Amino acid sequence: MPATTMEQLVSLCKRRGFIFQNADIYGGFQGLYDFGPLGVELKNNLKNAWWRAMVYERDDVEGLDSAILTHRKVLHYSGHEDTFSDPMVDCKDCKCRMRADTLKDGKCTECGSTNLTEIRQFNLMFKTNVGPVVNEESYGYLRPETAQGIFINFKNVVDSTSRKVPFGIAQIGKSFRNEITPRNFIFRVREFEQMELEFFVKPGTDEEWHEKWKEARLKWWEEQGVPAEHIVAKPIPKEDLAHYSKATYDICYEFPHGLEELEGIADHTDYDLANHTKNQDEFKINAHVHDKNVDSTSKLALYDEEAKEWFIPFVIEPSAGVERGVLAVLTEAYTEEALENGTTRIVLKLKKHLAPIKVAVIPLKRNNEAIMNMAHKIKTDLLKLGIGRVALEDSGNIGKAYRRHDEVGTPICVTVDFDSIEQEPASVTIRDRDTMKQTRVNLADLPNYIREYFA
Amino acid sequence: MPATTMEQLVSLCKRRGFIFQNADIYGGFQGLYDFGPLGVELKNNLKNAWWRAMVYERDDVEGLDSAILTHRKVLHYSGHEDTFSDPMVDCKDCKCRMRADTLKDGKCTECGSTNLTEIRQFNLMFKTNVGPVVNEESYGYLRPETAQGIFINFKNVVDSTSRKVPFGIAQIGKSFRNEITPRNFIFRVREFEQMELEFFVKPGTDEEWHEKWKEARLKWWEEQGVPAEHIVAKPIPKEDLAHYSKATYDICYEFPHGLEELEGIADHTDYDLANHTKNQDEFKINAHVHDKNVDSTSKLALYDEEAKEWFIPFVIEPSAGVERGVLAVLTEAYTEEALENGTTRIVLKLKKHLAPIKVAVIPLKRNNEAIMNMAHKIKTDLLKLGIGRVALEDSGNIGKAYRRHDEVGTPICVTVDFDSIEQEPASVTIRDRDTMKQTRVNLADLPNYIREYFA
Repeated sequence: MPATTMEQLVSLCKRRGFIFQNADIYGGFQGLYDFGPLGVELKNNLKNAWWRAMVYERDDVEGLDSAILTHRKVLHYSGHEDTFSDPMVDCKDCKCRMRADTLKDGKCTECGSTNLTEIRQFNLMFKTNVGPVVNEESYGYLRPETAQGIFINFKNVVDSTSRKVPFGIAQIGKSFRNEITPRNFIFRVREFEQMELEFFVKPGTDEEWHEKWKEARLKWWEEQGVPAEHIVAKPIPKEDLAHYSKATYDICYEFPHGLEELEGIADHTDYDLANHTKNQDEFKINAHVHDKNVDSTSKLALYDEEAKEWFIPFVIEPSAGVERGVLAVLTEAYTEEALENGTTRIVLKLKKHLAPIKVAVIPLKRNNEAIMNMAHKIKTDLLKLGIGRVALEDSGNIGKAYRRHDEVGTPICVTVDFDSIEQEPASVTIRDRDTMKQTRVNLADLPNYIREYFA
Repeated sequence: MPATTMEQLVSLCKRRGFIFQNADIYGGFQGLYDFGPLGVELKNNLKNAWWRAMVYERDDVEGLDSAILTHRKVLHYSGHEDTFSDPMVDCKDCKCRMRADTLKDGKCTECGSTNLTEIRQFNLMFKTNVGPVVNEESYGYLRPETAQGIFINFKNVVDSTSRKVPFGIAQIGKSFRNEITPRNFIFRVREFEQMELEFFVKPGTDEEWHEKWKEARLKWWEEQGVPAEHIVAKPIPKEDLAHYSKATYDICYEFPHGLEELEGIADHTDYDLANHTKNQDEFKINAHVHDKNVDSTSKLALYDEEAKEWFIPFVIEPSAGVERGVLAVLTEAYTEEALENGTTRIVLKLKKHLAPIKVAVIPLKRNNEAIMNMAHKIKTDLLKLGIGRVALEDSGNIGKAYRRHDEVGTPICVTVDFDSIEQEPASVTIRDRDTMKQTRVNLADLPNYIREYFA
């Protein structure tokens, strides 16, 4: 049974070093979080699982890592300068500022007043001056999505890899949105990571690929421990679609605070490449052109050998939030379990590839040199398997160590005890997180046992 | 023999999809670069090697991933608001703006004029407004270093992991500096990644740890293919030390443009934690306190069980630049080799753990189904080894494929030919990047062969 309240997760995350409020020693910086020693591993594991599925396991996707600072012309032609905003109102009584679409019955969410300003649009992009000169043209933006970095590199990737449609470009990286009211822990924050794929296809094949990607992404979430029965793939009604989208699925998950978007999968048609291409008049452009492009120096098009003409590919975009993914995975994994002895344990039943610590090696006695040496050697040997973090756990008694590793989701604890160093052949105790069963394994067999467990 | 000019590297990087000028379709955004399909793999491999050495292989280091947007109080008390600047002058004739310390004979670097403004300090931090309210206190900064994110989380990490000195916190992430004149390809840029360790020690043991870390880091660079004979560890003279440092080694590498800093290893004493702690009067603080801290809510101190008193740990900081590391590794790996047939090949002799593509599987004939099926199966099987990217290479003839993979540093090419599908037992050809030797290996032995090769 997944976590039922956000408080359960927030508490565990702080106590065990997954996620901390940013700048808490200065009262906290709203809408920003830091990932602690275990959080960074969990997040990296989720990102690696995505990269593996989207880049390594496919033959039609290349990776990319573009800059966060973004040229204003990129976000002008993409439409973000004009349209990437939320409606905002001020309360004239308590002076607070909020999103107009979150007001309940037209009353201030803080003080209940109805004495509000007119609604106006607030652009969510962070702006900053780039370079030592300050004038009207010297600013840039922190990217509000990683996608634009992919579109402006379309030709660079095609030229260096000789790709033809269908093919995709995948990117994982930070994006920034100046949310009016960040909330719900790491769900709505001002700085976050995205895992975005832009998959370029021949016009006319987009609807088929849109469906394929929806299926592929649902399967992937299932593999991360977020099952289909807690997900709703909502087709967005035509009248609610963004202007650049022909069709969109919102992949919504039952977060502790409600059913909300985990990933979006959109059919963008040729909107993005068309808006960034030069000589737009030469192409049959399907989408609305935001502003005639007089600055681009490159045709973002491919040559169709059969039709003997240049065309601008359509794009399917599966775009997932890393923090939202982490939150979903934690929600599903969080378990409070009644034990036979009447106590309760908290256990994070994370999929093993996502666990921050793969194996905890526990020497039963910290001041016994032979036990410590064997524990160190086991850690070193298991690390060589390349399975991720293997921790030497010598901080307390064995019972506490097991509890601690249940709470952080360590699938396997390996305990080195007196029998390990005194009896032949040398053996250790292996404890399983989920079943709590302990088995004795010969030391010589341990690496293969662990390798197969994590394969 | 390493690359001798930056042009060789820039050309290879663009042609093969390692590194692109950012926003080149809009004329380029100065001081910013994007990593292409192969660059992102190389960069990730270098970062993973650092993380593995600094976090996984040690028992005394925890990881962290803190936010880029930084509270202004953090960078006030750290001293960055007041001191993180470069001297700048304007040329009154050609109106260009430059770093005063790069002027040659006091003349403008662009037009040679001596008609310059007075020198003034230019703060290198990017500033941006955070939240929907705009006033004198509503801004934050893009972090100029990842280190501050570690210091402000010191207590969070200690509380969640029960760490005692000596121990460290490691972080990899983006930092931003508004360089007056970015230059030398990816060497001096406005957005870059750092790999920073803050290693906390008991006061008095800092000099010993400073030496230990210098040795450890030189050894690590050697393992990445950057040998000690191309590195100079320069101790910074006392009079040139930054105010927060007691001693610093600049680890300088012979880049194509000259001997310049690759990594800094500094003894910061208690400067950082002391400046962010509350109740500073309660501690014997060794370093200069930048400004009496009236905002921090936390004591960044540990209890010494023997001396029965609280103390502020000293910190040793090995801080390396990811882009500079990539540039050093590429410089060393780049090789132009005269072949017996009179031609020349370019080969990137990257250490195998850094190679963007580990194995290229090459089907000899693209339209032969049996060959393609075997190639696909080999790719899938080798991916399971978890060694990194395995590419199916079916873009051209075999000779071109080998040349291409020499240029991008792929250690092993596996070719599936007609013998592979026709003869029993099935076998494939393995070609070695460095020796160009080809050997025949039974298909059944291939996974073990590859596993051992990359172990």
